[in-house]
Amino acid sequence: MTKNTFFKRKGPFLLSDLFKNIQSNKKFNVTDIKSLEEANKNELTFFDKIDYINFAKLTKASYCLTTEKLKIYLPKFCIPIIVKNVLFDLCVVTKKFYPDADIDAPDTSLKAPKNSNFSKVKFGKNILVGKNVSIAKNTIIGSNTIIEHNVSIGQNCVIGSQIVLRNSLIGNNVVIQDGCKIGLKGFGFIPINDKNLRFPHIGKVVIKDNVEIGANCTIDRGSINNTEIGQNTFLDNQVHIAHNVKIGNNCMIAGQVGFAGSSVVGNNASIGGQAGVSGHLKIGNNVKIGGGSGVIKDIKDGITVMGYPAVPLKKFIKNQKK
Amino acid sequence: MTKNTFFKRKGPFLLSDLFKNIQSNKKFNVTDIKSLEEANKNELTFFDKIDYINFAKLTKASYCLTTEKLKIYLPKFCIPIIVKNVLFDLCVVTKKFYPDADIDAPDTSLKAPKNSNFSKVKFGKNILVGKNVSIAKNTIIGSNTIIEHNVSIGQNCVIGSQIVLRNSLIGNNVVIQDGCKIGLKGFGFIPINDKNLRFPHIGKVVIKDNVEIGANCTIDRGSINNTEIGQNTFLDNQVHIAHNVKIGNNCMIAGQVGFAGSSVVGNNASIGGQAGVSGHLKIGNNVKIGGGSGVIKDIKDGITVMGYPAVPLKKFIKNQKK
Amino acid sequence: MTKNTFFKRKGPFLLSDLFKNIQSNKKFNVTDIKSLEEANKNELTFFDKIDYINFAKLTKASYCLTTEKLKIYLPKFCIPIIVKNVLFDLCVVTKKFYPDADIDAPDTSLKAPKNSNFSKVKFGKNILVGKNVSIAKNTIIGSNTIIEHNVSIGQNCVIGSQIVLRNSLIGNNVVIQDGCKIGLKGFGFIPINDKNLRFPHIGKVVIKDNVEIGANCTIDRGSINNTEIGQNTFLDNQVHIAHNVKIGNNCMIAGQVGFAGSSVVGNNASIGGQAGVSGHLKIGNNVKIGGGSGVIKDIKDGITVMGYPAVPLKKFIKNQKK
Repeated sequence: MTKNTFFKRKGPFLLSDLFKNIQSNKKFNVTDIKSLEEANKNELTFFDKIDYINFAKLTKASYCLTTEKLKIYLPKFCIPIIVKNVLFDLCVVTKKFYPDADIDAPDTSLKAPKNSNFSKVKFGKNILVGKNVSIAKNTIIGSNTIIEHNVSIGQNCVIGSQIVLRNSLIGNNVVIQDGCKIGLKGFGFIPINDKNLRFPHIGKVVIKDNVEIGANCTIDRGSINNTEIGQNTFLDNQVHIAHNVKIGNNCMIAGQVGFAGSSVVGNNASIGGQAGVSGHLKIGNNVKIGGGSGVIKDIKDGITVMGYPAVPLKKFIKNQKK
Repeated sequence: MTKNTFFKRKGPFLLSDLFKNIQSNKKFNVTDIKSLEEANKNELTFFDKIDYINFAKLTKASYCLTTEKLKIYLPKFCIPIIVKNVLFDLCVVTKKFYPDADIDAPDTSLKAPKNSNFSKVKFGKNILVGKNVSIAKNTIIGSNTIIEHNVSIGQNCVIGSQIVLRNSLIGNNVVIQDGCKIGLKGFGFIPINDKNLRFPHIGKVVIKDNVEIGANCTIDRGSINNTEIGQNTFLDNQVHIAHNVKIGNNCMIAGQVGFAGSSVVGNNASIGGQAGVSGHLKIGNNVKIGGGSGVIKDIKDGITVMGYPAVPLKKFIKNQKK
Repeated sequence: MTKNTFFKRKGPFLLSDLFKNIQSNKKFNVTDIKSLEEANKNELTFFDKIDYINFAKLTKASYCLTTEKLKIYLPKFCIPIIVKNVLFDLCVVTKKFYPDADIDAPDTSLKAPKNSNFSKVKFGKNILVGKNVSIAKNTIIGSNTIIEHNVSIGQNCVIGSQIVLRNSLIGNNVVIQDGCKIGLKGFGFIPINDKNLRFPHIGKVVIKDNVEIGANCTIDRGSINNTEIGQNTFLDNQVHIAHNVKIGNNCMIAGQVGFAGSSVVGNNASIGGQAGVSGHLKIGNNVKIGGGSGVIKDIKDGITVMGYPAVPLKKFIKNQKK
């Protein structure tokens, strides 16, 4: 993914125009904003948590918003831009590049799909499609569904009715049931009295092959990174997946489960109904989370947890006997 | 708010026609039904819980449904109507005034909006608008959205797609994401075998300036009072707010949180994902509620709670160590 | 219900064609697949859990998928088909009879309703109706609602806007609020790496008279059995009811409650907000479940439970005091 096709980008900007306290004789061009692992030469990234040290060491970004403490882990060629609150400055500078990504204005260019553009797609009624939408062969789209500009849908998919898809790349053989809202802006903002500062969401939702998503689910797009659902993962109804969450392959996520932002789940996870996973956690492979559990810590591979807060199953059973 | 513009009101009625056991030589006119704090002369109110004693003492209502025990707190000019079950009688009498407010018949007068009435509003496709809807300048409305009669929307709002708005007054700079259902009848009824008695919902949803509401949220209108969301409060996806709930300013309410009816939340509250708040509670200012918590008691200003049932954070941590 | 009107059935098949290891000189005809209690002569059923022993003893099915251990409970006329994994084989054979029931392809035959077919029904705008839909008199349907083929709706119902109804039989005086998705395929599959095997869902949703369903609820249809909501049961917003769940009469189910598959609830149950009920449980009559509780065991008649996992109220209160 070298180009962001969902949002219009401004710039390039001079580094000294973006950050007034950066003074240099050289004119540094900043072309885009990306995560540590995705950024390239002339691009700006950010590094705000020691957890991401391994990505920081390997970043190819030319510039990085960070703190005095963390800057030492960056490669030598990467110019650190030291700030007090990395996310605040990231928010401000991202808005300069992407002024339209912090509020989800509905796509007013939507139209009924032209059959000539989608000759091998089956459509229900009253479907609205934006510019540059691509839908591969043998896919079927239900009625009243809205597919906003630049969304891409693979082949043999079954997309239900009354769905909204935006800022999303959807693989092959994907099933999405009625009422889902996918690719909307996530719940990210800097709290400020009387006027919160919304975080631009320039990421996407990426749904891999053979995924199934139940009715009335919500999957928010990423802020800088993407939100991802791995191959053959199945979600039940009313699941909520926040921005930047990455779920692996072959997972089973039951009804009304909720994920807070930026958590990562491995492969083959099985998550019971109404369980909740806090933000910024790392859940390993082959993990089982009991229904109704509240996960607030990382979980290693192969562990089964239960409870609120969730603990390993043996401990949960022992606690119950007290 | 002197007039209920959302529901047709019958009457005025004679007090003795409404309550057969009230006998008097004078002909008392009853013009409307309102809450203790909103009722005026010639209007009927109700007082069923000692918690509302301060409102009772100051009410301007001429008549009040109440109990033998509570009637002593009413002002002298207010005629008490003593009943066994205040809510049952309130339900019956409210139905006489507002026969159409106990079931949400869809607005069958909906039409495509005439551009001449909304010259400074941007519309998506297939939008339906009822009679007397007002939408201020620079507001944008997404596709397939339904705005029923008498709803008012301020300026600079972004209302997404596949939304239903009814019985709602919406301020300026409000963002509502796709799939929300706002202003519907709440979950209020007197349980009766084989035929529950539905409570008329004559209240509104009032959403103040700068509010943001995530995707697929539901916010029910008030029964007699209104449901209110204060300025600059942000709600994440799939939040459920029941009838009569009042949420203050600058609150942050994460995904899948649920409020039961009539609870009141102060300003600057921060509520984690999947937390639940029981009915008729008073949550103070600057309160933090941990994700997944179940709140069943009032919370004073500045307190952080967690757990099920939710307790102050220190106690929660101590309990965990047992 | 002698015939499945929602899905096209293939067959009849010879028993020896369905199960290659069944060898017999007689040609056994298999006409359909049904549950133990609904199956009749020449029909195939399944018996995978000792819990269903009473239904097994009384089944009228001619053939039954089961295990070596369970086969002894079947009537003598019922030919047992012994397999290792009953549900796997059931899934495979059900797909042979009903090849279209494992993915919810949207109904592409939807059209605007002809007034001549529904002369006593009131319609909003942009409604889509499939073939053979029946709607009785004095029912009102909101805008943008989709009613797929063969759905039947009784009289005096109020069906809101932006709803999807499929594979459902709906009684009289039923109220369904906006945004509900009812009758979709449930969350049932045999997990297989890279290609889960979806369970065909050939059951229905049956909603009895006087039921009310809040906004944005999801009610999945049954897999082999039906999903049922009993008379005069009221559901609040964002409730999730999985496949095969049966809820009795006069129940009260608050917001965001979730049921996993195949649980059965008696009459007069009262379930608080955000409670969860695990799969395959039996909840008695007159049961109360506290808000936020997680029910993982059967509950006998008249019991009040609370907590996670839910325990009888007295025990819950005692545990709190520890």
